[in-house]
Amino acid sequence: MSKISVAVLGATGMIGQRFIQMLEDHPWFEIEGLYASERSEGKRLGDVLKVRDHVYKDETMDRRIEVMDIGKIGKNCRIAFSGIPSDLAGPTETELAKAGVAVFTNAGSHRMDAHVPIIIPEVNPGQYDAVKDQPTYGEAGGYIVTNANCSSTGIAAPLHAINQAFGLKQVFVSTYQALSGAGYPGVPSLDAVGNVVPFISHEEEKMETELAKMLGTYSDGEFHYAGFKVMANCARVPVIDGHLESLVLDTEGQPTLEELEKALVDFRGEPQTLKLPSAPEQPIIVRHEDNRPQPVFDAMAGRPERARGMAVTIGRLRQSNGYYKAFSMSHNTLRGGAGGSVLNAELAVAKKLL
Amino acid sequence: MSKISVAVLGATGMIGQRFIQMLEDHPWFEIEGLYASERSEGKRLGDVLKVRDHVYKDETMDRRIEVMDIGKIGKNCRIAFSGIPSDLAGPTETELAKAGVAVFTNAGSHRMDAHVPIIIPEVNPGQYDAVKDQPTYGEAGGYIVTNANCSSTGIAAPLHAINQAFGLKQVFVSTYQALSGAGYPGVPSLDAVGNVVPFISHEEEKMETELAKMLGTYSDGEFHYAGFKVMANCARVPVIDGHLESLVLDTEGQPTLEELEKALVDFRGEPQTLKLPSAPEQPIIVRHEDNRPQPVFDAMAGRPERARGMAVTIGRLRQSNGYYKAFSMSHNTLRGGAGGSVLNAELAVAKKLL
Amino acid sequence: MSKISVAVLGATGMIGQRFIQMLEDHPWFEIEGLYASERSEGKRLGDVLKVRDHVYKDETMDRRIEVMDIGKIGKNCRIAFSGIPSDLAGPTETELAKAGVAVFTNAGSHRMDAHVPIIIPEVNPGQYDAVKDQPTYGEAGGYIVTNANCSSTGIAAPLHAINQAFGLKQVFVSTYQALSGAGYPGVPSLDAVGNVVPFISHEEEKMETELAKMLGTYSDGEFHYAGFKVMANCARVPVIDGHLESLVLDTEGQPTLEELEKALVDFRGEPQTLKLPSAPEQPIIVRHEDNRPQPVFDAMAGRPERARGMAVTIGRLRQSNGYYKAFSMSHNTLRGGAGGSVLNAELAVAKKLL
Amino acid sequence: MSKISVAVLGATGMIGQRFIQMLEDHPWFEIEGLYASERSEGKRLGDVLKVRDHVYKDETMDRRIEVMDIGKIGKNCRIAFSGIPSDLAGPTETELAKAGVAVFTNAGSHRMDAHVPIIIPEVNPGQYDAVKDQPTYGEAGGYIVTNANCSSTGIAAPLHAINQAFGLKQVFVSTYQALSGAGYPGVPSLDAVGNVVPFISHEEEKMETELAKMLGTYSDGEFHYAGFKVMANCARVPVIDGHLESLVLDTEGQPTLEELEKALVDFRGEPQTLKLPSAPEQPIIVRHEDNRPQPVFDAMAGRPERARGMAVTIGRLRQSNGYYKAFSMSHNTLRGGAGGSVLNAELAVAKKLL
Repeated sequence: MSKISVAVLGATGMIGQRFIQMLEDHPWFEIEGLYASERSEGKRLGDVLKVRDHVYKDETMDRRIEVMDIGKIGKNCRIAFSGIPSDLAGPTETELAKAGVAVFTNAGSHRMDAHVPIIIPEVNPGQYDAVKDQPTYGEAGGYIVTNANCSSTGIAAPLHAINQAFGLKQVFVSTYQALSGAGYPGVPSLDAVGNVVPFISHEEEKMETELAKMLGTYSDGEFHYAGFKVMANCARVPVIDGHLESLVLDTEGQPTLEELEKALVDFRGEPQTLKLPSAPEQPIIVRHEDNRPQPVFDAMAGRPERARGMAVTIGRLRQSNGYYKAFSMSHNTLRGGAGGSVLNAELAVAKKLL
Repeated sequence: MSKISVAVLGATGMIGQRFIQMLEDHPWFEIEGLYASERSEGKRLGDVLKVRDHVYKDETMDRRIEVMDIGKIGKNCRIAFSGIPSDLAGPTETELAKAGVAVFTNAGSHRMDAHVPIIIPEVNPGQYDAVKDQPTYGEAGGYIVTNANCSSTGIAAPLHAINQAFGLKQVFVSTYQALSGAGYPGVPSLDAVGNVVPFISHEEEKMETELAKMLGTYSDGEFHYAGFKVMANCARVPVIDGHLESLVLDTEGQPTLEELEKALVDFRGEPQTLKLPSAPEQPIIVRHEDNRPQPVFDAMAGRPERARGMAVTIGRLRQSNGYYKAFSMSHNTLRGGAGGSVLNAELAVAKKLL
Repeated sequence: MSKISVAVLGATGMIGQRFIQMLEDHPWFEIEGLYASERSEGKRLGDVLKVRDHVYKDETMDRRIEVMDIGKIGKNCRIAFSGIPSDLAGPTETELAKAGVAVFTNAGSHRMDAHVPIIIPEVNPGQYDAVKDQPTYGEAGGYIVTNANCSSTGIAAPLHAINQAFGLKQVFVSTYQALSGAGYPGVPSLDAVGNVVPFISHEEEKMETELAKMLGTYSDGEFHYAGFKVMANCARVPVIDGHLESLVLDTEGQPTLEELEKALVDFRGEPQTLKLPSAPEQPIIVRHEDNRPQPVFDAMAGRPERARGMAVTIGRLRQSNGYYKAFSMSHNTLRGGAGGSVLNAELAVAKKLL
Repeated sequence: MSKISVAVLGATGMIGQRFIQMLEDHPWFEIEGLYASERSEGKRLGDVLKVRDHVYKDETMDRRIEVMDIGKIGKNCRIAFSGIPSDLAGPTETELAKAGVAVFTNAGSHRMDAHVPIIIPEVNPGQYDAVKDQPTYGEAGGYIVTNANCSSTGIAAPLHAINQAFGLKQVFVSTYQALSGAGYPGVPSLDAVGNVVPFISHEEEKMETELAKMLGTYSDGEFHYAGFKVMANCARVPVIDGHLESLVLDTEGQPTLEELEKALVDFRGEPQTLKLPSAPEQPIIVRHEDNRPQPVFDAMAGRPERARGMAVTIGRLRQSNGYYKAFSMSHNTLRGGAGGSVLNAELAVAKKLL
């Protein structure tokens, strides 16, 4: 098939540039343009570089940033990947959907909208049904699909695997979130170096609601939330990429640690069955070393090469007083950001929504 | 009264030097000697400086390190403050107690011994009774008193205040522990910079048992543990001093947040009643800012000047699904280390155990 | 004498708060008001806290920020200490001088003005003569005195001591500058953690000109620059406070290292002779340890207590190929910022310019 | 040709693991065994992982560490790549050379030996003549080739290009060296976080002598040093990989900045002519952004993929008072460590010394 033209919105930001990374040699998608605000108009990508660990091609580094133009995008692109800051994303994304564009967004603006799903392809592919109930879908073929906030994404697949196998009652989660999650310029260095900030605006509320929405279902025109409870404490640590999260889980069943591990390791979802290009072969990796997962070693987990940063790593599985304890790690701007949305778009292709 | 002669053991280490800081101008105690292993014999304190934020007097910086000599210490000192690494501390401390010395130690070696209390003066001053059942006490007047591990200390007073007022059933705690807790050289910088290590050897086990021992009682020659359960996840973050801990609490009573806060703010213990020199006037400080406590602003909390680093700070008090959530911060090498032991010794003086 | 009323401008910023720290218990000065932009109007100092390592009094923490009001300041205050960002400081400071206020500023706006001196009291107290040639001085008694940029200040005193004793021909300097030098929010954490940024806008140009102005003289109504050359490379490192600088010096005379050290250690200036309140007893400290000065140990050098952070520390004095090499350290927001301006004001009092 | 069997010595360390990275899919070399001390015997590479940013193949991660066995290596391997700590490397490397093995080492032990060259293939390929004068070469075919210390390597190629074109008289260099240069565990985190340590043992002396040896020649059985002078100040900064260095250069000729840049950009050496597998196509990259090179963006410079981390990046070319100023960046454990030695071995193959 010929490649689908896609726009990258917010191309000067951290998430926007992770989109470009995921799309640089994508087998299905081709970048039509890089869009951002007027301030960056005409700059080369290389002049506003944010991503440390990816080597872009020379021709990608030389691409110029254009000012966002809904008309042009609507005419040329079937897809827009949005890394626009949440406070600006809402209306722009709605307009694009009206213009017939399928918007895959990292912004939080529409996550709680009536027929907008928060998709993690391994977890809730069935919620794609909601898309067809969006008014813009019927009119022009455009729609909005969101990914979850990065700290929810990081644990959604393991919680889903455990919920399916043993029934999940309560989740006590504390986060050790990376700086890149706040974007650029984001957290001032005077707050970050040698410090932890135990507050991320609205993050705990998102975790306590988004997870239940994602692990629920969509039917009869509405979302039905999963029944477990989440108690979240969120903090920012001086790490560049990779959200670490501590977990204490209360489950219906009482599996052995071996059974629990097996449920995680054996877990596969639609992206794996469909062999989507950006799907990690094994979505949940369990490690046995004493001191893993760590951001610097495990944030980029995932195979094959295209799926680096797309797997979740679980370590230190333990039991205590009838609860299960673990640490989870996932890449907040790949799996929990741009990579998640690219995988969502791949699933939409497979589901013939594109 | 004339001052009591005290020895500082492990004077080249981080805890040892915090002892020296707490003792430099102490109204009741006077440093007889600084002791460490042979490797540092004869060095000036200034040559092996570890503490960043305290300005020692010139004459303190010029004091020389001596090789540990149990005979000399036994003869000259009524008290030894021990910052010896836990793997070496056990037998030395026992010998000192046999020599008639009261040992106040930060090491973990004796914490679970039959009649050795883990004292936090605000929490369990009554457990000092255990000291009199130590065989060395009757024989020579020597004994061993431990402080808790630094992550347990940081939350012991708030948990005790809440337990007293409302009854504590379950504690879900995740730690963000400072590098100084691992001593020097401790954590390699290649593991620390831009990283989090979700493992501290034996730390979770300690938290899950020491807290219950401390918040319990001593009677009929043995310790009776408190009944609540602790589920701990421990991690090391790139912060110099100050352990941050996230809390989710399950209580018998269901106080309002205002009632909960009042129980914390109004809490006072024996050190406050007795006006011990290193006691913070208010042992638990509650903050209302969105983003506090933070290590860099709150680790040194505590008034008056002598009690800096001796108060615990609680922030972000919230409710969620019937639980109470909060973040707690305390200084791991002052309140949770050397300062705790100095306060223990002051309480022992007040109790005429010295 | 009764205390002189002073205004602090830019009180929400890092330099402004260092001013407050230096002025809290000042024997000669009394804070009339804390001023900043409208955005912070009415906030408590404690709500906008930036300084990590100073414990302000409760009543200071509770002081409210006011919107800058030149009329009020002109009426109530003889002195304004300015921590306003350089891009805004120029006109405000001029207006204050016109209103009869003596402005002691950390901003760079007026440093190269015709009769405005860059004062370091130990180095060029004679340049205070320039003040009398400022038009506002004759008219209303107001004037402007600047301190140098923080990286120049850090080496000005040692270079002056060496220039006086042996004649200075060339200075090769590379800086390792702290994050606080860029103010708040300043450097984004994504640029700072695990990184060095080898660029600080206009900093090298400032070092290459300001040092020669400061070490020069003022006569016949103009500044006469010193004759040595400065070659500067400036970089930002992930340190909170304290600028480290590497030096290679080319001198007329060829002293031994002992003679060089003696010239540094014995150096005293007018602040020491006059025993100004914020003057360090010994303005240049020379250390002999292998690995000093370091930001975390030496930025706060200076005695007595009031002069902490006001001394410069030199270490690793060596010779190589006929040059002298050393590392220098000084506190960029105390000696190189607010502290420098407070000492300037003290000198102005001593010189009866206030 | 069939691949040459090579041993990796010091395989548990940072340099050893960079060797493994460079050799994993090498077209000419094949890893025979991974060797280290007894402490690590039998461990998997994955159990002692140090490198953060390379994804080793599963089968590489599963390779076991063996105890160093000179007999086995001598029998099976034509080459040994040595990442042994310098204090242990000397005698082992000598024994291996006696056993007929060509030793390419990162250790400093033999760098100043009579006929042992310090090779940077772009700079001094002619010094390979020295190898033939090593006694072991004639006897058994074994010999020792060293690479330079990492801070010298980082600037050797640019200095050589400038020296050739314009004549170099004096080099003033200050280093901002990464933590990985000190190996593992290396620098304690308590010294690294938020700090700079202005001392690296023997580093300045090495820079002041090794560069002159490398940029010199070998003839008549001895090394003839280049005539320029080096004045070095070395410091350790909290960066993981990548040495930044500030330069002030004094040259015979007075090129324009454009001419200087052209000499750097156009520079090519034997590795480029010979198209050695690990040679970067362009060994010196010049950047024009204000704020580059930076460790996080430029340490890994170099194309093609196999040569990532093998190019040197120069930025901020400026003039001041007749001198040239610049910042240089190179990867200390790739170009300045394991990669340099692998490139040396490739050149030895091309020169038929293997």
